[in-house]
Amino acid sequence: MVPSPPGSNAQSDLEIMMGLARDLLATAKAPLAAVGVSFGGPVDAARGLVLLSHHVPGWEEMPLREWLEERLGVPAAVDNDANAGALGEHRFGAGQGYDSLMYITVSTGVGRGWILNGRPWRGADGMAGEIGHVVVDPAGPVCLCGKRGCVERLASGPYIAQRAREWLEAQPDRGRILCVLAGDNLEAITAKMVAQAASQGDDLAWEALEVAAWGLGVGIGNAANLVNPRCFVLGGGVTKAGERFWEVVRRTARQTALPEVHFDVVPAALGDDAPLWGAIALAEDQIST
Amino acid sequence: MVPSPPGSNAQSDLEIMMGLARDLLATAKAPLAAVGVSFGGPVDAARGLVLLSHHVPGWEEMPLREWLEERLGVPAAVDNDANAGALGEHRFGAGQGYDSLMYITVSTGVGRGWILNGRPWRGADGMAGEIGHVVVDPAGPVCLCGKRGCVERLASGPYIAQRAREWLEAQPDRGRILCVLAGDNLEAITAKMVAQAASQGDDLAWEALEVAAWGLGVGIGNAANLVNPRCFVLGGGVTKAGERFWEVVRRTARQTALPEVHFDVVPAALGDDAPLWGAIALAEDQIST
Repeated sequence: MVPSPPGSNAQSDLEIMMGLARDLLATAKAPLAAVGVSFGGPVDAARGLVLLSHHVPGWEEMPLREWLEERLGVPAAVDNDANAGALGEHRFGAGQGYDSLMYITVSTGVGRGWILNGRPWRGADGMAGEIGHVVVDPAGPVCLCGKRGCVERLASGPYIAQRAREWLEAQPDRGRILCVLAGDNLEAITAKMVAQAASQGDDLAWEALEVAAWGLGVGIGNAANLVNPRCFVLGGGVTKAGERFWEVVRRTARQTALPEVHFDVVPAALGDDAPLWGAIALAEDQIST
Repeated sequence: MVPSPPGSNAQSDLEIMMGLARDLLATAKAPLAAVGVSFGGPVDAARGLVLLSHHVPGWEEMPLREWLEERLGVPAAVDNDANAGALGEHRFGAGQGYDSLMYITVSTGVGRGWILNGRPWRGADGMAGEIGHVVVDPAGPVCLCGKRGCVERLASGPYIAQRAREWLEAQPDRGRILCVLAGDNLEAITAKMVAQAASQGDDLAWEALEVAAWGLGVGIGNAANLVNPRCFVLGGGVTKAGERFWEVVRRTARQTALPEVHFDVVPAALGDDAPLWGAIALAEDQIST
């Protein structure tokens, strides 16, 4: 792994990556058969096009699949990291054996990808799975997207921390454990601290976490009613918040879904590497088709 | 069309239908090539099995596809009327040219079907598309299913009529036009009357209808975020409530969906016949595959 140097652009990053690829290929035991890429930004997978990067300039409408195929002489496939993560968990992780699943990561934001009929479902604009901005509480707090009570507004890490901070300010006699963990500096509070305090018996911290679990559970139950996949695979930092968090997610999802709609809610198995495993699956599919 | 006689069961209904089929075939200009069936109840389409009928006994686990193939000597396919309706609108109606769509009928209940990648997506339990029981307002009124603020609870015809009745009882100085239409008999109020009164300038009637349009719009916007289909095709009696109703549905759906998620919301073209056209599409697919 090599981080992009500061001031890099698409062209310089691509040159670094091609250098790494050539080094690897020089010592590989078999010839290169195909390439799969998980890209951290919007991609038009059907056309093999990167649409843009939110972090690095020069990626706008970049025909990455064609670029790789020309230079490496093998078939290539490109997808965004959410779809690639779903494919990775499906082929190699917690989603093995399920022919339909929704993969949801809950950390700074809420990421997602669908597998339907054993294949990625990306949606007409490549936006399918935006459970983060499904409204679960129209009377809830305002989200960055402008709507109220989105799943992301209730369940993402930064918003869990913000909620705990606001509640501590309003109820200074509560949340002692959390305050101690944060060194009495409200600004230092993170979602991880909230989960830790909750597990140590801090009621305020647990209630702030419970809102997240409830929001995620309603979103999953609604998604189950709408799409009826066999499984939901949950990853990302927030889902490491402990068994009590999972219990509320599962119970709320079950209560929100119709009784005839059956599904499992399971923890992701591949962690941050899921998109890389997905890239391998994308490459495999180039060979077998 | 022949209605089932009272006291009929699966076997007697099948005999009536086979009689009709034989009469039609006797005068047909070409030999029978395939059979498609739209069934008004739960079906396991993959196995060609009717699971049960809510109206007629004897349909439990009935292998209808096999039964038809044995008797008619041609391939057959069976699906429920919601999926068949979606397929009918996709192949022959308002959904032509869209390779992904959600078909929603709003009348006594809320029915639905998905087309993804040009083919029906039925879900792991054949339940995909249950937008009727997606919660859009957790603080809303209690639905038959036990949850609060489901799309069906806000938007179905009987609930629109019930809401107007309750509001008339609580606010007897309002809703004059609706009262006159109902002959001053609150029990006689229907959703159609509510729509009619709204179009004639009755504010209470319009507000009762607006709740339905809002609920449906939030449900559609959430479905757009989750699945990102190209189009929503809306049918059923309630969707005939006029341009103002449609305007609220479209605006609310647009506000609920992310800006990057694009979709059309269009009226169904085939009315109550959509599932029959869908049965033709099912039969066509038996021939071409």
